[in-house]
Amino acid sequence: MELQSEESMSTSPTTSGSRSMPKTLPAVYYTDEAHYRRELEHFFFSQWICVGRADQIPAAGNFFRRDVAGESLIVLRDEAGAVRAFYNLCRHRGTRLCEKEAGTFPARRITCPYHAWTYGLNGNLLGAAHMAETPGFSVDDFPLHQVKTDLWDGNIFVNLADEPVRPLAEQLGVLVEKFRPWRMEDLRLGKRVVYPIQANWKLIVQNYSECLHCPMVHPALAKLSHYMSGNNEPAQWNYLGGRMDLNPGVKTMTMSGQSDRALLPELGEDERRHVYYYWVMPNLLLSLHPDYVVTYTIWPKSPRESEVICEFHFHKDEIGKPGFTPEDAFEFWDLTNRQDWHVSELSQLGIGSRGYVPGPYSMREGLLHELDKLMLGALEANARPNQ
Amino acid sequence: MELQSEESMSTSPTTSGSRSMPKTLPAVYYTDEAHYRRELEHFFFSQWICVGRADQIPAAGNFFRRDVAGESLIVLRDEAGAVRAFYNLCRHRGTRLCEKEAGTFPARRITCPYHAWTYGLNGNLLGAAHMAETPGFSVDDFPLHQVKTDLWDGNIFVNLADEPVRPLAEQLGVLVEKFRPWRMEDLRLGKRVVYPIQANWKLIVQNYSECLHCPMVHPALAKLSHYMSGNNEPAQWNYLGGRMDLNPGVKTMTMSGQSDRALLPELGEDERRHVYYYWVMPNLLLSLHPDYVVTYTIWPKSPRESEVICEFHFHKDEIGKPGFTPEDAFEFWDLTNRQDWHVSELSQLGIGSRGYVPGPYSMREGLLHELDKLMLGALEANARPNQ
Amino acid sequence: MELQSEESMSTSPTTSGSRSMPKTLPAVYYTDEAHYRRELEHFFFSQWICVGRADQIPAAGNFFRRDVAGESLIVLRDEAGAVRAFYNLCRHRGTRLCEKEAGTFPARRITCPYHAWTYGLNGNLLGAAHMAETPGFSVDDFPLHQVKTDLWDGNIFVNLADEPVRPLAEQLGVLVEKFRPWRMEDLRLGKRVVYPIQANWKLIVQNYSECLHCPMVHPALAKLSHYMSGNNEPAQWNYLGGRMDLNPGVKTMTMSGQSDRALLPELGEDERRHVYYYWVMPNLLLSLHPDYVVTYTIWPKSPRESEVICEFHFHKDEIGKPGFTPEDAFEFWDLTNRQDWHVSELSQLGIGSRGYVPGPYSMREGLLHELDKLMLGALEANARPNQ
Repeated sequence: MELQSEESMSTSPTTSGSRSMPKTLPAVYYTDEAHYRRELEHFFFSQWICVGRADQIPAAGNFFRRDVAGESLIVLRDEAGAVRAFYNLCRHRGTRLCEKEAGTFPARRITCPYHAWTYGLNGNLLGAAHMAETPGFSVDDFPLHQVKTDLWDGNIFVNLADEPVRPLAEQLGVLVEKFRPWRMEDLRLGKRVVYPIQANWKLIVQNYSECLHCPMVHPALAKLSHYMSGNNEPAQWNYLGGRMDLNPGVKTMTMSGQSDRALLPELGEDERRHVYYYWVMPNLLLSLHPDYVVTYTIWPKSPRESEVICEFHFHKDEIGKPGFTPEDAFEFWDLTNRQDWHVSELSQLGIGSRGYVPGPYSMREGLLHELDKLMLGALEANARPNQ
Repeated sequence: MELQSEESMSTSPTTSGSRSMPKTLPAVYYTDEAHYRRELEHFFFSQWICVGRADQIPAAGNFFRRDVAGESLIVLRDEAGAVRAFYNLCRHRGTRLCEKEAGTFPARRITCPYHAWTYGLNGNLLGAAHMAETPGFSVDDFPLHQVKTDLWDGNIFVNLADEPVRPLAEQLGVLVEKFRPWRMEDLRLGKRVVYPIQANWKLIVQNYSECLHCPMVHPALAKLSHYMSGNNEPAQWNYLGGRMDLNPGVKTMTMSGQSDRALLPELGEDERRHVYYYWVMPNLLLSLHPDYVVTYTIWPKSPRESEVICEFHFHKDEIGKPGFTPEDAFEFWDLTNRQDWHVSELSQLGIGSRGYVPGPYSMREGLLHELDKLMLGALEANARPNQ
Repeated sequence: MELQSEESMSTSPTTSGSRSMPKTLPAVYYTDEAHYRRELEHFFFSQWICVGRADQIPAAGNFFRRDVAGESLIVLRDEAGAVRAFYNLCRHRGTRLCEKEAGTFPARRITCPYHAWTYGLNGNLLGAAHMAETPGFSVDDFPLHQVKTDLWDGNIFVNLADEPVRPLAEQLGVLVEKFRPWRMEDLRLGKRVVYPIQANWKLIVQNYSECLHCPMVHPALAKLSHYMSGNNEPAQWNYLGGRMDLNPGVKTMTMSGQSDRALLPELGEDERRHVYYYWVMPNLLLSLHPDYVVTYTIWPKSPRESEVICEFHFHKDEIGKPGFTPEDAFEFWDLTNRQDWHVSELSQLGIGSRGYVPGPYSMREGLLHELDKLMLGALEANARPNQ
């Protein structure tokens, strides 16, 4: 049986086999190393990628490391208070500069552990022992390789392209206005968990983009929010999402459906009775609750592996209160997330089989089909077929 | 030294270096990923493969999983009592359906753990939530992908080809008649052990096909059966094998050479004094003893790795007796098998060296040369050179 | 950003970006599998490689195994007292002959564990059961595949080329005379340690070839020997190195700078006040101290992985004394080596990033640039561009 190869020959994979019925992508999009590299290059690296939160690095010299598809970046607060990001390697002999996950650079200097080349927080090379003897050498020629950064409401984004195709604000578009009431800049990190997942990054986004699986996979969630209450926005080129109703009597998503936390202060009546689930292209999932926000950043590791950094953010006033705990929110979503990762991993396993052929999306899986088309469109626009 | 590449350029590898002296294959046949894939496609997947025993799934809804070179299959008993096999993935979004090694499907239904698509034991799609809203969707279009199955004397075979080149009975040929006296259908599983082996599958078959190594490798075996007593049949296109004498006073192959078990009831005098060792193309080794049968199914994992599932089968009357134990047979063969796997792994290591060149087969290794020719013939008939 | 690919397109990588300023190599030389294979073939396998010491195999039948870039070799002492090396596999079916790391072949015979083919210590096939029946077979046609060996002052070298481009003595050149005072043949092994290192072999040699990093990386070393006291010889085609002063009052390199051992008997005054650090092409690092010698043999495992076998050798008279211990020397270098391997691993990590571009060598890193040129020269002389 050569089912896969037939399908992968199809010129328009999203409608293969049927004009009217949208179908899942051929296996190659979930398993092939070359395709994966193209996807990283033309879909991931060309966009603004969310790498974390500004409140992780409040003071000059604070930093964290972030691995972006194999690339180690240093994200830091500079002396002027700006957030900057640099490739984590010395301009001398390429040595990785920083091994710690997060911390503070002593004396506001980044010093290479090999030959002590020393950089300022703005990336400028300040000292390079014995290089003065080298004809033609100037410290000005060897600053750290900087990566473009920008901020949205407390979230830090980087762009690895030399010339980003658009500013962050344009990539976000109407989301800036839409999510203003949650005032993410006023939130503080309460809990973090990192999940390794044996599945392609798209399967994680697709799992997030429908609740048709909720009755089967998430019995605890079904008690709080009905899976048919979902109301998706029409798909956009830069985000996909919608909201679901909280059941009557349910205040927020916790195991009990209750919470001692005050609701976020600027939410309207409608926003207090829903949870908003959005994929923000390319790697951010935003779950906006009445009293807290969960962010998931997705980090592709290989065609078949991803990592998700999941963070719970609470209002700075609440997080400072005695007795504050993030555990009720965490307990609920940790259970639910693990259920989601598990079925995503099962999908990865099946899609890798020669018995897999694209299957039909239901009307309630429209966002998944839109994601497929966005990714294919990005490849078409940016890549030649056999590149 | 470029010894290997010279050899692998040779147009007729089985006679390289000498017209008269048959030699082992060039290293590429044991180490190269591309060749390995061709071998799987044209030699393994195009044949009827033994996957287990019918007595593992006696009742409707009973199933076991089997991984066939990376493909997960569900093998089950359907409501009509027939044995069927399916690719282990849902027709919706490709999710792996079944994670358990073996068991019984509740209510005779196979339900996908993701969105609860539900299939009957015949593979028909019975329910698919919310798909009715999708224009043009019909459950009739999305049955599980079935794999052809057939039975021989209690052994289950599958064929992954769309159109098998021949029926199972034709692949087995005279073996059906030859092994009838052992009445394998009346045997029941008494013991199973799974061996991971760091060697190409052909090295396992080759090791099985000669006893020239027995004095060196198997001192315990040498006490029961003389290595020079082996009497091979002329090589056939579909099997290779022969028999060896039990030494005088030896009843069967156990550490003591004795056994409390009754001999299998329909064996003739001659069959009671020999052990029959046969490779049944492509993946079954059959060791037929006077009082029990050992089956080995060989599962290639990579050019350099295989797995062997080794099962001991006893007459249903014996296995039901109080005090029955398979351990005497198991103890002997477990020791002997591990000795065989070890030298096979040493061969794999040496063949992977640039110092390896094909070496001469002795007259007592004729079956090995025949195996090489069978495999090469299958590739020549089915594959274009650079495919 | 496509920084790497631009650089790797450069036709003269060692001077890319600047005529006057030597720079590190593009990343491909440290990360690419195909380049790595070329390097092994044209730089490693074509040279005389140091595999160990003659005093490891003093008597006929003594042997040790050595893995040379995936090739297992047997190095032994034959009946005539000569050192020989063979590929570790049987000429029959390719089976690895010897699994032990070191030992003595019983009865001066090498016997294959599979079918008992038996070889003499000179590699001749002496016995092959049942092969006499095979027409045309002669034991004379199937000796072990021998690898050329030679000795230098107690060090054993092998050459895997069919026709070495030059004798060992010519490869060593003036080193034979230069290091005669240390009388390495009179030294005996006192300590061995094996280090797995996640770095390309060249990074290990480069780290060894400069002490600019010493103040930052090796505070303990800095107390014994000033990093600016280094005095390099002009680079040679076959070795790179120089010497460093022992600080006043320091007798040798140990944690205390002191030692109970007698100095090596034939050293001159100058040699007693320095430590000599030499890379002997392609895989030997020699650290010559007033009272002991450290050898490092470097074993590439992959573009990003190497193994170093580090051995401490002492005068045969000292090592025989009651109370002799190698631990003071070992303790100091084990600490220092681990610091070196760590920064080498950090370099490997950074060089693998898309943010890496070749950086400037200082005047004190001249030997590193010379190593790069030697390697590139060997590839240019031996390999066609796209081979």
